[in-house]
Amino acid sequence: MAPDAPHGGGTAIGTDRAPAAPATQYVGAMTPPQAAPAPAGLPSPTATALLTDRYELTMLQAALADGTAHRRCVFEVFTRRLPPGRRYGVVAGTGRLLEALPDFRFTATELDWLADARVVDDATLEFLAGYRFGGSVRGYAEGEVFFPQSPLLVVEGTFAEAVLLETLVLSVLNHDSAVASAASRMTSAAVDRPCLEMGARRAHEEAAVAAARAAVVAGFAATSNLEAGRRYGLKTIGTAAHAFTLLHDDEEAAFASQVAALGPGTTLLVDTYDVRRGVERAVAAAGTGLGAVRLDSGDLGVLAHEVRRQLDGLGATGTRIVVTSDLDEYAIASLAAAPVDSYGVGTSVVTGSGAPTCGMVYKLVAREGRDGALAPVEKRSTAKISVGGRKEAARRRGPDGRAVEEVLVVGPDASVVTWAPDDEALRPLLVPLVTDGEVDASWTGPAGVVRARDRHRASRDELPRGARRLSADEAAVPTVTLRLPGRD
Amino acid sequence: MAPDAPHGGGTAIGTDRAPAAPATQYVGAMTPPQAAPAPAGLPSPTATALLTDRYELTMLQAALADGTAHRRCVFEVFTRRLPPGRRYGVVAGTGRLLEALPDFRFTATELDWLADARVVDDATLEFLAGYRFGGSVRGYAEGEVFFPQSPLLVVEGTFAEAVLLETLVLSVLNHDSAVASAASRMTSAAVDRPCLEMGARRAHEEAAVAAARAAVVAGFAATSNLEAGRRYGLKTIGTAAHAFTLLHDDEEAAFASQVAALGPGTTLLVDTYDVRRGVERAVAAAGTGLGAVRLDSGDLGVLAHEVRRQLDGLGATGTRIVVTSDLDEYAIASLAAAPVDSYGVGTSVVTGSGAPTCGMVYKLVAREGRDGALAPVEKRSTAKISVGGRKEAARRRGPDGRAVEEVLVVGPDASVVTWAPDDEALRPLLVPLVTDGEVDASWTGPAGVVRARDRHRASRDELPRGARRLSADEAAVPTVTLRLPGRD
Repeated sequence: MAPDAPHGGGTAIGTDRAPAAPATQYVGAMTPPQAAPAPAGLPSPTATALLTDRYELTMLQAALADGTAHRRCVFEVFTRRLPPGRRYGVVAGTGRLLEALPDFRFTATELDWLADARVVDDATLEFLAGYRFGGSVRGYAEGEVFFPQSPLLVVEGTFAEAVLLETLVLSVLNHDSAVASAASRMTSAAVDRPCLEMGARRAHEEAAVAAARAAVVAGFAATSNLEAGRRYGLKTIGTAAHAFTLLHDDEEAAFASQVAALGPGTTLLVDTYDVRRGVERAVAAAGTGLGAVRLDSGDLGVLAHEVRRQLDGLGATGTRIVVTSDLDEYAIASLAAAPVDSYGVGTSVVTGSGAPTCGMVYKLVAREGRDGALAPVEKRSTAKISVGGRKEAARRRGPDGRAVEEVLVVGPDASVVTWAPDDEALRPLLVPLVTDGEVDASWTGPAGVVRARDRHRASRDELPRGARRLSADEAAVPTVTLRLPGRD
Repeated sequence: MAPDAPHGGGTAIGTDRAPAAPATQYVGAMTPPQAAPAPAGLPSPTATALLTDRYELTMLQAALADGTAHRRCVFEVFTRRLPPGRRYGVVAGTGRLLEALPDFRFTATELDWLADARVVDDATLEFLAGYRFGGSVRGYAEGEVFFPQSPLLVVEGTFAEAVLLETLVLSVLNHDSAVASAASRMTSAAVDRPCLEMGARRAHEEAAVAAARAAVVAGFAATSNLEAGRRYGLKTIGTAAHAFTLLHDDEEAAFASQVAALGPGTTLLVDTYDVRRGVERAVAAAGTGLGAVRLDSGDLGVLAHEVRRQLDGLGATGTRIVVTSDLDEYAIASLAAAPVDSYGVGTSVVTGSGAPTCGMVYKLVAREGRDGALAPVEKRSTAKISVGGRKEAARRRGPDGRAVEEVLVVGPDASVVTWAPDDEALRPLLVPLVTDGEVDASWTGPAGVVRARDRHRASRDELPRGARRLSADEAAVPTVTLRLPGRD
């Protein structure tokens, strides 16, 4: 489609057209990787290179032409602030990003389209055909807690190779971290009752898979999402909706059918008609060995007490109560005294409970100058100031082992600062993720999720007492920045 | 990974395990469609069938066993309320849903995993191997404005074929409609100045593609997202970030490089160091034919006036001003009197400007009973009541051609109600999308986006005067429900 050009004529703001390039021009110089043709309307199966903002390619074109594309650069990912009232954030998505990175290639599918759409010139297409990220990435481990200014990812490479990753890096980390940051508050509020992720229907279908994964990183016990189960080895849960009860001639028939198919250990949804009658019928259908009942509407606190008494009175003392219905961290906390066994959480976890994205940015903080030395750079106009220079980060812990501050060191040799190895109070935060283009696969796949979940648990346990309360407050620990003298 | 079972033992709440099924058991009875093995960690390239909540499959298993799976059913998608203060919603995602529907197949990849994970029994695996949606779907045209209770989609088929679509339908429509509903307020506030979608970095990488598409449905002129451009034929925009200026030895060098590569019609980002100096250097680099300058920080209203005066004083009277920096519909409205030429919108559009998902639900409203007749059904417990029975919908317009009410008719022959064909005041809202399993492809692909954008423009123009103001209020028109007598 071609929306009207915003300003008449063909020169809409920002739509710089590169000189016309025949679609196959680049093939002569360098054969691009071959990809099977993608089905109409679908991306090539695995390529991720067009999940990118156009300006990354136009910057590349200009920098290739003037030679600066090959300058060594350091980009950092950080957030200027936490969502209002939040006390910490949770890094998530690192594993997904590392899974996507090897597929960040420009195959014939992408190159043909870029040529047809005249996004960049022939020289740039040639470069893209051979593109492969060959730089290095260090970052906070997935699951780690973070604060404003924490250098969550430090990407080093040439400008050309690093600039192209901006959008993909931010899309993955901003989304997944928003979900994990909210999910962590929920699992914290739930204490040792399991939280179950059920929000797929309220999120983009692929975002839902990532959200399930991020929720598990932050301590959720399982997800309703089958693709998340398949892709990341997550435990999946789910039994029946109201539609199943309504499909049958009556509630008795529906419950009998479910128990016959799934066994008495199943979870019966008891609020389609009348909860009290529903509980009666549920125990009648499954016996006192009924696994659980689910409550999906009404005043859950009051209902849970009533249903618990009723179940106990019927002898179903081992039958659990799972509640679902627009739960968020506050609703979970308010149910702490109710006889609830687990929480099914949907909308609020997949939408970050009021903060659907993190404000992470991807900023150039140092680059090689004409003299070949790495120099710190930073934007200096009125707002959105960032701190130039490559950073190192550690968490300082007090005598009780709890975090007291986030320590950032900026300066020429920040990346090789010795973190006082005998000083156990300082825990270094940046770990290697990609080295000279090689992804450390131990952060990816199902094993990466387990590792991230464990990291999150340990990192959150290390926070100061009170850091996990839900009420609005400042970041749980302050961030201090030390500047080392000299050029970066 | 295997999170701890929430209640000890192996019988976590809701995790009913089907009896063990050898992974290839289903092959004997019915050969599943063959799919190439998916790369590790990635879904099979096009299958969408596991973007599903587990309970849809467990309900299917029980319904197959008791015979109710083959009962004819009507499911409807609707929302109980609009986000607080919103006056209308915008349907989006219909085209994407129709593109995904033919790929909702259980290939060997999905079936093997379902068997290995023991999600369902052998009989269900056999059914899934042959699954193809053969029912019919009618719905509000993509781009149409909607209100609470509007029957946005009416899905008819057997329980088995219709129940499996719940999560995919809701994921697509809830996400895309949330974005389009917010985007419509922005394009409305911008009046005839173009809005440009630039939010990919603040959304899951695939959700970003869908968000760009939804924004264009709601009137955005272009997107920064290249994959959205490729997949849906959208116009893409973008020139340079602060990193490009910082990469160079000074702003002059950066601007000269960009103009050399992209021509004087490009957009120069002038706020890296000092806006006044930046504008001077921009015009010096490109001449008075400079296409545009971009302001990405500071008080945009004040700055725009200053920059306009400066540009005019330098003779660059045709140079446009594009502003970006956490804009939402309110910020856009506040800039109405400023000399701004276009708005780049990021976070707020891709996150639905405070309403990141719609509350759409997928409810069984009628099903075949033992007597073979279709009977209305509805949940009747304390909350979340829905109206049973198949619905028809039309928008009634007043003498001035503007909408006055949403008319829903519920009842036995609602789907064949004659909408007083001579009465031009009633505009029918449900259009055929899928007929006996055949997708109407005219709603899909790039052409579908154009059609949806046109539909949205016409539908919004039809709203009552005042419906487009941003301040919080009730739905722009009331919804009236007429019940026809007799069984559904």
